[in-house]
Amino acid sequence: MAQRYEIRFSGAGGQGLITAGIILAEAAAIIEGKHAVQSQSYGPEARGGASKSEVIIADDPIDYPKATLVNACLALTQEAADKYAHGIIDKGVLLIDCDLVKTAPQGNFTLYQLPIIRTAKEEIGREIVANVVALGAMVALTGIVSFESGEKAVLDRVPAAFRELNKKAYRVGFEKMKGIL
Amino acid sequence: MAQRYEIRFSGAGGQGLITAGIILAEAAAIIEGKHAVQSQSYGPEARGGASKSEVIIADDPIDYPKATLVNACLALTQEAADKYAHGIIDKGVLLIDCDLVKTAPQGNFTLYQLPIIRTAKEEIGREIVANVVALGAMVALTGIVSFESGEKAVLDRVPAAFRELNKKAYRVGFEKMKGIL
Repeated sequence: MAQRYEIRFSGAGGQGLITAGIILAEAAAIIEGKHAVQSQSYGPEARGGASKSEVIIADDPIDYPKATLVNACLALTQEAADKYAHGIIDKGVLLIDCDLVKTAPQGNFTLYQLPIIRTAKEEIGREIVANVVALGAMVALTGIVSFESGEKAVLDRVPAAFRELNKKAYRVGFEKMKGIL
Repeated sequence: MAQRYEIRFSGAGGQGLITAGIILAEAAAIIEGKHAVQSQSYGPEARGGASKSEVIIADDPIDYPKATLVNACLALTQEAADKYAHGIIDKGVLLIDCDLVKTAPQGNFTLYQLPIIRTAKEEIGREIVANVVALGAMVALTGIVSFESGEKAVLDRVPAAFRELNKKAYRVGFEKMKGIL
């Protein structure tokens, strides 16, 4: 693993991206024993519809938790892509929802596309788990935690009644991403 | 309001302190238009039972999101008080659950005590809303957002079926704190 790895989840408010960030941080820290900082930073733009959540993962203590250079970014909506898909390092990765982000940001990173919201709706049957589909895809894309650590962190965090739904969402997201890597 | 105000919520994992932090940040930023950063930092101690969540609120953009000097701290358990009730500024405030924190941390801050968990259990009927009782108390203690902004942020964030329960928990926490100020 790199010394420090930063992941940004962006989309619309209400899509559960803060939860996705928390689950990833807990997978890395509580399950895999790394250091992690999870944060959301709200400025004047917070009143708009776009939302973001950031996770920094490192082997050593993290002195400066603000995401400055992003290794991997997710954008579920066009507005989020326009606002938050920046600061990605050279050779970093950007995953967009290809149904909703029609104009992909340009940069010296590798662009990946999946129909994340549609997958949640049509294959899992609940749009509300799009965040966990996205989390599974980002775990597959980055390899920053193992499939199993991410799955355990999902199951530890979601209410008991929704465990099977979220477990399926996570696995489907992971497998869809693996299919295009 | 001070240039920069930092609040730390600490307790045990599963007590919903991350959610309390997110709600406070959303009250300050999305509702009141301030800048806010909400974060959780996980180190090797994350495997233990103690958990913390931090919020920084400011009128201007926040450059350095890591909480370094805490204006107001909450500790719901003895372990959290021992681990996380430090770095409080001179003349800052510390609120502890007086049933669970038997040995209060010492420092040049003002100590407040409320039976937060017991209030959630006995007056609201659900221990799970202890985080929102605590949030109401911290809003009353700090005045960092208005009662109404905090209440709206609670209602925006919790599932519809639990709105009345959380609204009551928030109000009771707020009023209990006002009663001892």
